Amino acid sequence: MRLSAYFLPTLKENPTEAQIVSHRLMLRAGMIRQTAAGIYTWLPLGWRVLQKVEQIVREEQDRAGAQELLMPTIQAAELWKESGRYDDYGKEMLRITDRHDREMLFGPTNEEMITAIFRDNVKSYRELPKILYHIQWKFRDEVRPRFGVMRGREFLMKDAYSFDLDPAAARRSYNRMFIAYMKTFARMGLKAIPMRADTGPIGGDLSHEFHILAETGESAVFVHRDFIESDWQNRDVDYDGDLQPLVDELTGKYAVTEEKHDPAAAAALGDALVSARGIEVGHIFNFGTKYSKAMNAVVVGPGGEPVTVEMGSYGVGVSRLVGALIEAFHDDAGIIWPEAVAPFKVGLINLKKNEPHCDAACETLYRALGGEVLYDDRDERAGVKFADMDLIGLPWQIIVGPKGIARGIVELKSRKTGERQELPLEAVIERFRA
Amino acid sequence: MRLSAYFLPTLKENPTEAQIVSHRLMLRAGMIRQTAAGIYTWLPLGWRVLQKVEQIVREEQDRAGAQELLMPTIQAAELWKESGRYDDYGKEMLRITDRHDREMLFGPTNEEMITAIFRDNVKSYRELPKILYHIQWKFRDEVRPRFGVMRGREFLMKDAYSFDLDPAAARRSYNRMFIAYMKTFARMGLKAIPMRADTGPIGGDLSHEFHILAETGESAVFVHRDFIESDWQNRDVDYDGDLQPLVDELTGKYAVTEEKHDPAAAAALGDALVSARGIEVGHIFNFGTKYSKAMNAVVVGPGGEPVTVEMGSYGVGVSRLVGALIEAFHDDAGIIWPEAVAPFKVGLINLKKNEPHCDAACETLYRALGGEVLYDDRDERAGVKFADMDLIGLPWQIIVGPKGIARGIVELKSRKTGERQELPLEAVIERFRA
Repeated sequence: MRLSAYFLPTLKENPTEAQIVSHRLMLRAGMIRQTAAGIYTWLPLGWRVLQKVEQIVREEQDRAGAQELLMPTIQAAELWKESGRYDDYGKEMLRITDRHDREMLFGPTNEEMITAIFRDNVKSYRELPKILYHIQWKFRDEVRPRFGVMRGREFLMKDAYSFDLDPAAARRSYNRMFIAYMKTFARMGLKAIPMRADTGPIGGDLSHEFHILAETGESAVFVHRDFIESDWQNRDVDYDGDLQPLVDELTGKYAVTEEKHDPAAAAALGDALVSARGIEVGHIFNFGTKYSKAMNAVVVGPGGEPVTVEMGSYGVGVSRLVGALIEAFHDDAGIIWPEAVAPFKVGLINLKKNEPHCDAACETLYRALGGEVLYDDRDERAGVKFADMDLIGLPWQIIVGPKGIARGIVELKSRKTGERQELPLEAVIERFRA
Repeated sequence: MRLSAYFLPTLKENPTEAQIVSHRLMLRAGMIRQTAAGIYTWLPLGWRVLQKVEQIVREEQDRAGAQELLMPTIQAAELWKESGRYDDYGKEMLRITDRHDREMLFGPTNEEMITAIFRDNVKSYRELPKILYHIQWKFRDEVRPRFGVMRGREFLMKDAYSFDLDPAAARRSYNRMFIAYMKTFARMGLKAIPMRADTGPIGGDLSHEFHILAETGESAVFVHRDFIESDWQNRDVDYDGDLQPLVDELTGKYAVTEEKHDPAAAAALGDALVSARGIEVGHIFNFGTKYSKAMNAVVVGPGGEPVTVEMGSYGVGVSRLVGALIEAFHDDAGIIWPEAVAPFKVGLINLKKNEPHCDAACETLYRALGGEVLYDDRDERAGVKFADMDLIGLPWQIIVGPKGIARGIVELKSRKTGERQELPLEAVIERFRA
């Protein structure tokens, strides 16, 4: 993409409405714009990141054996009356009356709807287990939306739901999602730490939150040092094998949010205790028959008997992750994207637009590098170009100036380390060829 | 995907609520389920088709120079009061009041929102032209939703918006979208015919509808035979060149819906006139300054003067296209997917599950063919398997039976032609290798 044509409205000044760094940087880098309180448009640069994050979530769900479908945003209130949550949910639920005066709502989550779909379409134990997921926009009418996409009202969530014949099988589904989450966050360059959690309004008795560590995190967390230093995610996982030992290992060490912190237990860890800040990016629940019983999701069991299915639900805040990634990866100059989720892999800076050799070298690079390059072909000062490129945080910058190109040399800069090296044009092409 | 594990609830009987063939077949093939009037869940098989259709639309928008972003579903009513459409829109608009008693709505279209985004972020003629698009769920509260996804309430639309400095440039943007639409539909195997159209509530004076021909189409259409027999879409198009001659050629021949039909003009065509049935799958508008004037979308022109930008909007019904494709491609046994949008390219039928040679051959094929194969590994009668595979309409069926496999032979069947051929196992693998 050529920056001269790209819709990338960067801002030089910090927007006053943004209280946290990810919100500030998403506005400044032209990733999002607010269109109503807590509701955002994702501009092209932000949309590219959101799509990459979404695709990683999708691939890891698929790998773990979950099947994707898509439920609608608008739901009938009757479903929520069946589970008893319609009245409980309170003002966070966006309630709607349609033209025929039917009570509807914008889904804040989908336990009820997926249970109804399952109930109407699955009849036999032979069709179990099933893990079904979708990646869909949700709405929670927060009383004070803030922190940009970290606590917006309309947000993109991946929510998966498991259906099993008995608690042991349900635990296997839970373990699959547990491991899939660890892998998902690791692929984005994030160190996610599973923490025992309350089940809250979702229900059930087994639940973990996944927090990533960031200095600007919203929660105080206390974790065993091994979580930070270990590199477990490089291990191969066989999803059809027994995942319990790995889950036990990953849940066997101290890792809690402030609410669950036990100073006495923590003190016993001595130097192994790390206190840090965390951002919740995922939450998984095993809630047994809470919804299947209320909504009559029953299959015929192996002996012909009716069995109320065991369920769990598994959420990742996909749009929230984009903010969380920036909280984890930034410096004073701007964002520092991990390669897996960077909107473009390479930023190409032409220091002397309209100088024939610079232009020719840049065109050669632009064509060779394909869709993962953003070419700053604007007629702007070098300082403006450097600042914008650091702000939007592409992992690599290729800098083409008249002196270097006279020798056939361009500069390659790592956004993360700031390290620069001079390389022949051909070597850079070879390094990044599409 | 193994069918024994796949969430594919096919139906043997025709659902009584479905009046048209695409609705019937989408329900029977386990592609969708209704969750409220005119609101559907896309089950895994349907979701795969919807994603493929969406991806073709996206690629052709990108190729034509449009840039993707994502606007939210929920909009503030104020935007629509600025354009004057809030009161005009009537009961089709799903109106919502949030917890702070602010008037909101579920977007039925996005002219107002994109104009506000443009106005707030683009200041100079140097940033033009711009074509921005998104693929997002819309809601229109139809009084009588029907025909499944063809006239639902929550539906997926691709809507693009162009911004230009003057009418000549706006016409160039219009032409880009016009050609992009022809290519989009052609890639799906559809013959789309552009027809002069009324602009209706969107406004403006230049508009085309794109109709595909299907015996079960909703509208009577009258078109010059050349549209049906020509094969223009195989021509290369240079989007940076002058598209007007091609657009003139494609709009120079008779093609109208019933409302615009002129029997006298049509009669002059003689044998060249074809009367047929059409389904609208796209609609494009050039509406000048209707929204930019009302909402003050002004840039600084080349001479420093303020210029109210020229706009157009361009819609494709993405979810509707899935229904339209089935209307165009089906027979008595079920759907006949064109390869580009088929949920899987190949269906693999094991005629004798648990027979070691059949099982082994199927496993070999399943592993070799990758993600585009659906393997019917169920312990079911051959008749059930054939019927289900014809119903869901994958383009190719590979049939593995004990007699053939004893000779190393499998059967390859084309869903479209019904043609069958016997081939060595290795030849089939070579033919479809992922």
